[in-house]
Amino acid sequence: MREARTGNHATYRPLERSSTICIVGLGLMGGSLALALRASQLPVNLVGVARNPATIAAARSAGAIDYGTADLAEGAAGADVVVLATPVRTILRMLPQVGQCARPGALVLDLGSSKKQVCDAMADLPDKLQPVGGHPMCGKEVAGFGAAEAGLFRDRPFVLCPLPRTGPAALDRAIGLAEAAGARPLLLDPALHDRAVAGVSHLPYAVAVALVNCMDAADDSLARSLASSGFRDTSRLAASEVGMMLDILVTNRDAVLAWLDVFAGQLDHLRSALAGGDESVLSEMLASAQHRRSSMVF
Amino acid sequence: MREARTGNHATYRPLERSSTICIVGLGLMGGSLALALRASQLPVNLVGVARNPATIAAARSAGAIDYGTADLAEGAAGADVVVLATPVRTILRMLPQVGQCARPGALVLDLGSSKKQVCDAMADLPDKLQPVGGHPMCGKEVAGFGAAEAGLFRDRPFVLCPLPRTGPAALDRAIGLAEAAGARPLLLDPALHDRAVAGVSHLPYAVAVALVNCMDAADDSLARSLASSGFRDTSRLAASEVGMMLDILVTNRDAVLAWLDVFAGQLDHLRSALAGGDESVLSEMLASAQHRRSSMVF
Repeated sequence: MREARTGNHATYRPLERSSTICIVGLGLMGGSLALALRASQLPVNLVGVARNPATIAAARSAGAIDYGTADLAEGAAGADVVVLATPVRTILRMLPQVGQCARPGALVLDLGSSKKQVCDAMADLPDKLQPVGGHPMCGKEVAGFGAAEAGLFRDRPFVLCPLPRTGPAALDRAIGLAEAAGARPLLLDPALHDRAVAGVSHLPYAVAVALVNCMDAADDSLARSLASSGFRDTSRLAASEVGMMLDILVTNRDAVLAWLDVFAGQLDHLRSALAGGDESVLSEMLASAQHRRSSMVF
Repeated sequence: MREARTGNHATYRPLERSSTICIVGLGLMGGSLALALRASQLPVNLVGVARNPATIAAARSAGAIDYGTADLAEGAAGADVVVLATPVRTILRMLPQVGQCARPGALVLDLGSSKKQVCDAMADLPDKLQPVGGHPMCGKEVAGFGAAEAGLFRDRPFVLCPLPRTGPAALDRAIGLAEAAGARPLLLDPALHDRAVAGVSHLPYAVAVALVNCMDAADDSLARSLASSGFRDTSRLAASEVGMMLDILVTNRDAVLAWLDVFAGQLDHLRSALAGGDESVLSEMLASAQHRRSSMVF
């Protein structure tokens, strides 16, 4: 892992002023990227691709895009940068089509939450294109353009996974785009990204899902009456969009399974200490978690 | 479960105007209760008991108490209401002493997060005293008087567990106190409370602890770089005060163990569906959690 840029920003031209950027998918992530680029005041031309005409209308009316279309080929054809901001398996399905319609030299960047399968698929793109896997480390449990906000990426890490074939100019362009959105670009190997993110993001999601589904065993009205901020926060991620999360779990399966096993081991350790009345072990586990969590800065 | 009061509040005198209320423990809960009662403008006399002179000084300087002492007997002796706002096992240890020093007719109320053991211990108080178990359903992961706030209880359920021997006037007094703090009193059986709260509060805490302790298996600096709002919220409870949480887990052990088993079953179910590539089952689990969580109001 390394910060992508530490030098003098003033001498750096983050994005070509004449760039046309095509964002495919105008949900929370794609919509927020469009709004962030617009807010950056760079005179880029923003094209949005979305299936739903109402989404395009909303994005146009918010000033997030200059032009919108439901046709991927039409949107991507004239773009210097094509950003794929859909669920991961939709990205995987779209990549061959992007390969056919994007123009030579175009940067192809995605915003998917797992990177190994995406980068592997990007390796099959025609040589004329410049692929970079991307993952901005931010989000909300609410989906859609209505939840998008210009500040979503601000000061958050924006993971970039260049392929061996990716040229330095294209990588610079991806870094410039992340910086223009207010994020901190972070260059990372796809498999390393996937393992780490499985732990800090996909595992917490799975845990939240299991926690909420536990409530099937509860007196529902009593549980709802008594649930407070603790349950609210611990379970928040369970409200995430199902299609997006299913794609993430399935495309990052091995890493998620490995973390689920680590987690089950920790939980079993805690259960044994509590069941056996081993307060010194229990206390040590709680104190260790308290210490680590209190020292984390978000 | 029943809401303790639904009638015309205007005709109800929530607390005797001349009451002296002794709050033992001026941390987050006790301190917030003192501040809330003060903010209620009822001309009650507030006495605080705390071991640390700095806590008493802070509570006095914030106007939360009229008088402070480190001596439980001195503080409780003149009180119409004694509120025990310490970790659960400290409450259990203090009850016999309260039994010796509290004056006849005094209401003895606690704010502990598990109720069965406390209510059982309250049954051993001298007949001259009026015990009610209590648990306001609110909190924060930060402890101490510095974290206390007058609005902590506002509109939150305040569970009250009267004992069979508790007289109606004493229960009314407890209800009045909860209402004066801005909370919604909720009468509940102690064992029923403990089972429900183990699910919506103690289980989420245990899950957060296990999640944070998992990070021992992670590349620490990478995990810290990439952890975002999802990890932040899912793990927040792990920062809770260890002594308080240890007491809760130990005094509510059986209910917590039962919920840990339900949770482990749910997590294993999710793991199997992911490992086996059974997307319809996996998708159903995610959708069920998404539906339930999105419908919850906090």
